[in-house]
Amino acid sequence: MNSTDFDAVDIIRTKRDKGVLSAAQIDWTIDAYTRGTIADEQMAALNMAILLNGMNREEIFRWTAAMIASGERMDFSSLGKPTADKHSTGGVGDKITLPLAPLVAVFGVAVPQLSGRGLGHTGGTLDKLEAIPGWQASLSNSALMNQLRDVGAVICAAGAGLAPADKKLYALRDVTGTVEAIPLIASSIMSKKIAEGTDSLVLDVKVGSGAFMKDEAMARELAETMVALGKDAGVNTVALLTDMSTPLGLTAGNAIEVQESVDVLAGGGPEDVVELTVRLAEEMLTAAGVRDADPAAALRDGRAMDVWRRMISAQGGDPDAKLPVAKESETIYAPADGVLVELDALSVGVAAWRLGAGRARKEDAVQAGAGVVMHAKPGATVRAGEPLMTLLTDTPEKFDRAREALADAVVIAPEGSRPARRLIIDRIS
Amino acid sequence: MNSTDFDAVDIIRTKRDKGVLSAAQIDWTIDAYTRGTIADEQMAALNMAILLNGMNREEIFRWTAAMIASGERMDFSSLGKPTADKHSTGGVGDKITLPLAPLVAVFGVAVPQLSGRGLGHTGGTLDKLEAIPGWQASLSNSALMNQLRDVGAVICAAGAGLAPADKKLYALRDVTGTVEAIPLIASSIMSKKIAEGTDSLVLDVKVGSGAFMKDEAMARELAETMVALGKDAGVNTVALLTDMSTPLGLTAGNAIEVQESVDVLAGGGPEDVVELTVRLAEEMLTAAGVRDADPAAALRDGRAMDVWRRMISAQGGDPDAKLPVAKESETIYAPADGVLVELDALSVGVAAWRLGAGRARKEDAVQAGAGVVMHAKPGATVRAGEPLMTLLTDTPEKFDRAREALADAVVIAPEGSRPARRLIIDRIS
Repeated sequence: MNSTDFDAVDIIRTKRDKGVLSAAQIDWTIDAYTRGTIADEQMAALNMAILLNGMNREEIFRWTAAMIASGERMDFSSLGKPTADKHSTGGVGDKITLPLAPLVAVFGVAVPQLSGRGLGHTGGTLDKLEAIPGWQASLSNSALMNQLRDVGAVICAAGAGLAPADKKLYALRDVTGTVEAIPLIASSIMSKKIAEGTDSLVLDVKVGSGAFMKDEAMARELAETMVALGKDAGVNTVALLTDMSTPLGLTAGNAIEVQESVDVLAGGGPEDVVELTVRLAEEMLTAAGVRDADPAAALRDGRAMDVWRRMISAQGGDPDAKLPVAKESETIYAPADGVLVELDALSVGVAAWRLGAGRARKEDAVQAGAGVVMHAKPGATVRAGEPLMTLLTDTPEKFDRAREALADAVVIAPEGSRPARRLIIDRIS
Repeated sequence: MNSTDFDAVDIIRTKRDKGVLSAAQIDWTIDAYTRGTIADEQMAALNMAILLNGMNREEIFRWTAAMIASGERMDFSSLGKPTADKHSTGGVGDKITLPLAPLVAVFGVAVPQLSGRGLGHTGGTLDKLEAIPGWQASLSNSALMNQLRDVGAVICAAGAGLAPADKKLYALRDVTGTVEAIPLIASSIMSKKIAEGTDSLVLDVKVGSGAFMKDEAMARELAETMVALGKDAGVNTVALLTDMSTPLGLTAGNAIEVQESVDVLAGGGPEDVVELTVRLAEEMLTAAGVRDADPAAALRDGRAMDVWRRMISAQGGDPDAKLPVAKESETIYAPADGVLVELDALSVGVAAWRLGAGRARKEDAVQAGAGVVMHAKPGATVRAGEPLMTLLTDTPEKFDRAREALADAVVIAPEGSRPARRLIIDRIS
């Protein structure tokens, strides 16, 4: 069928009226949008129709394939070792990529972790690593290959050549209220991950106030869709549904999250960060065909730390450099005696963001030292007047708005109460 | 509330999630879109959300009021006579405005009929009148007032000052598959009609294949919404639901529809055109407070024709000029003996459009002589080989595509069959 046989308005109407788009219509839509033949306002109307009326599996598969076809595909087969990647849908205090990539590389699996910057209340992996003096996010494709061969792990910025249709579409969805559509989220994530050329992929789909998906059923549907998309493209894909009702670890920010990651790589660190890092490493290693690996041991005995140091050095960073420290701090105290049963992830994320750890617009800079340090997590017994959190920023006028965000973040219950938190809610494969 | 308190994405999300927009949000949206602060892609996403999730009456009222407030309002109170206007949602062969405006003016009611051009398969009133040599569609506001005072009837182009938000929004809806939303259709029509400043308004809401609304329930909802909007704004408003399953009259085109209108003004013309013209005149006169008028008599005795001639002359037209005639014609013959029970309005409209009577893009020109002349209407007994329709165009290469449009237009049933057509389906006030 000739491409001139399609009309953008017909395609919009089809989805508006709950119809199914043909493979040829989808291919044309993505190509025409990338070329500018379909205007932004037409794509915005189509996105809203997709958000409200959905797409079936076949449509989502084809939409994803068309986005992959809009750009280059990477190929790691010349490395001669298996590759594994992890993607998190984003959460507060989610620094897991930092210890995880070197930990998996310990076992001979190459980890090409192409990452993004943060926008809104969830931090970006690149923003965190850029707190390390000298560290560079951008790598050429050949530098990326060399580092994967020599070090085994890379965390770097995704190049502009992967799924350019997704880049244009994501920017449009951001300003048109059409981000929260499962077919569009799944195809956006998976088009980049499939184009990246990894053999296996572990998805960490977050659920809860601090996550993109507040609701478990929606998160499950997203996870199932992405696992199916990955498998269909020949990528060995598995997903974990994990809790994001409270932040991961005791820090939400940039330099402070790097420090916490280094603590984990040194065999310490908060229990939940260690648990999730080890579990995700096990999943990645299993998916990559490595048996009998013991990632917990590789954290304790320093092997993961060795890879981390080489990984940071390879990208110009100094693993021994002192990390930036915020100029100003303020403390939030416990208002009563009891058990901390709730510490809301979204509130902490928004507070860290307002303190300068995140950005409102993509051209904004972030403060390396800003963020929130937590002194207690749900389950801890606290006394009135004890420090609960420390707020960090270079710009003290931001404290008030950060405190506002935290106004309802904390719930303290009578002693003997126990908060219910399952860190790992389910596994979908 | 300060206008900076609103965010386009929040407003889109509210409607996307089936929420209700506040009056202040709606005022801001229309104003910001007119000024360009809300981008086309944001308005497109909002329109699709409105189409799929609807708006309640209060939202529609406010949306309409905001569009009226975006431009100027006309005021005919200085005329010292009542004003009445008619609006049709558009149909095939719908030339009713041409005989109706002068007919109502006979009885001392001023008729300011601000009209548009055709786009797609339904013709435009201005396109039809422009077939008359010398006739000008554009009038200044003062020329409009003078003609209303002196002649009593004006059919002219709506100025750019009325509801500019609607003009911008309509162009956007046209390319984004969001035309068919009742709240948007109702507010688009009524914002212009209310801004126009008429005292009373009769709506002719078409139902059937050749209409915008194929479905009676949708047409009824649109009519009820528009009547409520008019009354709320102090305009005495009534609506008729009328049949558009088959064309009105025996002509669909431009010059040929003018000729048929002149036939009606001369006391002749097809029965359905006369019936609907008289009924709409009665409704307009009643709404304007004129009692005991006999519009049918004013067609028979030449009073309506006198006003027509003065109305055409006042706008530079020659009411005695020979109308343009198409260069080429082809005939379509009856395929069998029997009763013509169906002559599909949409098919005839598309054929006339393809022959050159209508335009695909708003910058296209129309052919004055092109169109379809019908020799029989549903209910007529026909013989195989008798002429059923004559196709007219200046560009004979168009005949094939017009014939294609008519392939399934005609149904002939055994003698004794009777087609069911209620010209006037219901009245909503």
